[in-house]
Amino acid sequence: MPLAAARRARRVVESEWADGLIGSMNSAGWYELPSTLGRKTAPLIGARANEVVVTDATGINLYKVLAAALEMQPERRVIVMEGSNFPTNNYVAQGLIRHLDKGYSIRFRETDGLLSAITDDVAAICITHVHYKSGLIHDMAALTARAHAVGAAAVWDICHSVGVMPIDLNACRVDFAVGCTYKYLNGGPGAPALLFAAERHHGKYLQPLTGWYGHADPFAFERDYRPAEDIRQMLTGTQPTASLSTAEIGIDIALRADIDAVRHKSQRMTGLFIDLVEERCSRAGFELASPRDAAHRGSHVSFLHDEGYAIIRALHDARVICDYREPGNMRFGFAPLYNRYVDVWDAVDRLHSIMTEETWRQADYQIRKAVT
Amino acid sequence: MPLAAARRARRVVESEWADGLIGSMNSAGWYELPSTLGRKTAPLIGARANEVVVTDATGINLYKVLAAALEMQPERRVIVMEGSNFPTNNYVAQGLIRHLDKGYSIRFRETDGLLSAITDDVAAICITHVHYKSGLIHDMAALTARAHAVGAAAVWDICHSVGVMPIDLNACRVDFAVGCTYKYLNGGPGAPALLFAAERHHGKYLQPLTGWYGHADPFAFERDYRPAEDIRQMLTGTQPTASLSTAEIGIDIALRADIDAVRHKSQRMTGLFIDLVEERCSRAGFELASPRDAAHRGSHVSFLHDEGYAIIRALHDARVICDYREPGNMRFGFAPLYNRYVDVWDAVDRLHSIMTEETWRQADYQIRKAVT
Repeated sequence: MPLAAARRARRVVESEWADGLIGSMNSAGWYELPSTLGRKTAPLIGARANEVVVTDATGINLYKVLAAALEMQPERRVIVMEGSNFPTNNYVAQGLIRHLDKGYSIRFRETDGLLSAITDDVAAICITHVHYKSGLIHDMAALTARAHAVGAAAVWDICHSVGVMPIDLNACRVDFAVGCTYKYLNGGPGAPALLFAAERHHGKYLQPLTGWYGHADPFAFERDYRPAEDIRQMLTGTQPTASLSTAEIGIDIALRADIDAVRHKSQRMTGLFIDLVEERCSRAGFELASPRDAAHRGSHVSFLHDEGYAIIRALHDARVICDYREPGNMRFGFAPLYNRYVDVWDAVDRLHSIMTEETWRQADYQIRKAVT
Repeated sequence: MPLAAARRARRVVESEWADGLIGSMNSAGWYELPSTLGRKTAPLIGARANEVVVTDATGINLYKVLAAALEMQPERRVIVMEGSNFPTNNYVAQGLIRHLDKGYSIRFRETDGLLSAITDDVAAICITHVHYKSGLIHDMAALTARAHAVGAAAVWDICHSVGVMPIDLNACRVDFAVGCTYKYLNGGPGAPALLFAAERHHGKYLQPLTGWYGHADPFAFERDYRPAEDIRQMLTGTQPTASLSTAEIGIDIALRADIDAVRHKSQRMTGLFIDLVEERCSRAGFELASPRDAAHRGSHVSFLHDEGYAIIRALHDARVICDYREPGNMRFGFAPLYNRYVDVWDAVDRLHSIMTEETWRQADYQIRKAVT
């Protein structure tokens, strides 16, 4: 938690809410926060200031932009996605197409099969930039170019890459993108998500969650919806202000860093982690599930282990915060802005102890409960 | 702001986030908050503990439940709504039916015309319990009974009634409902919204914003969506935790009050306000736009005035927090849990000064800017 986030949360609750009351919608800038934070986030992702908002949640934003993207090719019925993707993206797309009830289907492929799956019957691709388990970086430029070559829209999820590596949505000609602020942007628990819509689509393709924040004239209180002609059309309604406010702190901090330096440190940290695990826990049975080549690797590393669940729980108790993803996937994330190389050493040292002392065999580590 | 909300916000940010990190998803109950708060809210609205969640935002929740409600009568194509309703509800319904592209239409009627508009071609009614401007209470039991008599679903928005008057969704046999926590429940700025789905519909009608929180087995990370069979199907994804946490404080406080006593005080406060304005500002040109009969009136009172906008701004500067709604509508809300009768007196006293001294004529009060 950034110290400034604690100060900001206190200000929002104890001053803006307690003293400013509803007047803070204007005086404290609450109403403008989605645009304010979007404008700030834009340079981190290669977007223009008027192409981004921070609002709602990643899954909800994905629903919005995927629905808008499908309008670009109304005659086509295929969406290309990665089956092993973070499931909620699949669920959102499945919910959307079930709801549309127009014969859409999802063409699920894995990494190597994605490019060839993008054929001229595809309405949109919907790909996550960095895979949530393996950390593999998908080639945003190549996949987007392929989508455009066949007339499909390109929707990207940058949850696992924003803030930890250079991203250039406009250089790649991405149509729409979503991403969360609570991973590398360190925006706070469940902080609202970013949404990018390329300026060339503004005023053309509507997202369906049409609320008063996205109306051309919100305070006219007209009976009928008239879409805002700009990025605000992507907004729905009133935002969770305390959570949105702490997100600004994380974004501000990310903006002060040189993203190339962040990426460089990230690659070195993940590389060091892989080397240390393979060297110090060589007989523990870990199998690397992330790219060995740093150029293809995001900022987290996964190892597979049959006892991954129990090991992760033992690591939590040793204050190594990592997570478990079925099946058998142990995921370790490295945040270059505040993790140090010594943290990498310490994490592996504790893992080494857990494996040599077989701490993970303890009965209470074997009991399954949700580890998020 | 409840003092406990400030303490809770500090705890969430400075302890659960700063120290507990992602482990707080389990250890601090973050993951369960939507259900925890739903279970708490249920007795306030005549729902069972397993019929309510607090999540996302009112407009988004309305999209979910209206989409689910339309599935109950898949052959019908008409939704009955109030044209003068808070516009975002209309916008949400308009966005939904445009998106569905199946020939749905909205039959807009005003108060007196609602009942007769509910004919056997209606798929669903979608009505706000207490009108956001006038404060008129719609007859939830009668309108719902009429809907059911013709085979339509009944969706209610209780934003302006929850926490300030007795509500019995199940006694009225309401199918789905939404409402916000940041008005009379005092949950904090933009705090997430409540969503009610009657138990008899669980596992039958799906909301389309399908995310991992609504999956039958969220932590199995399956590729394909399998809906939870209970109220959790109404959830999408990760929640804005700081904002959701402060909402719990407001709900807890509301639960400690006798809702009949709250309603009694509310009626007396709004009645006193009307009497005082009409007595002390009798020549100022205010026209009551709310029901004179307390039995039909919610907890806010609206007066119309051609200079309403400037008067509201002058009142804000006199620390009377009220709001303006086009056209000419001055809205005053009374929260019985913390507003006192003397506050009613003081508000009218300041309004009286503004009108007699013609403070509202000052140039800067005439400049239009958004007053939310």
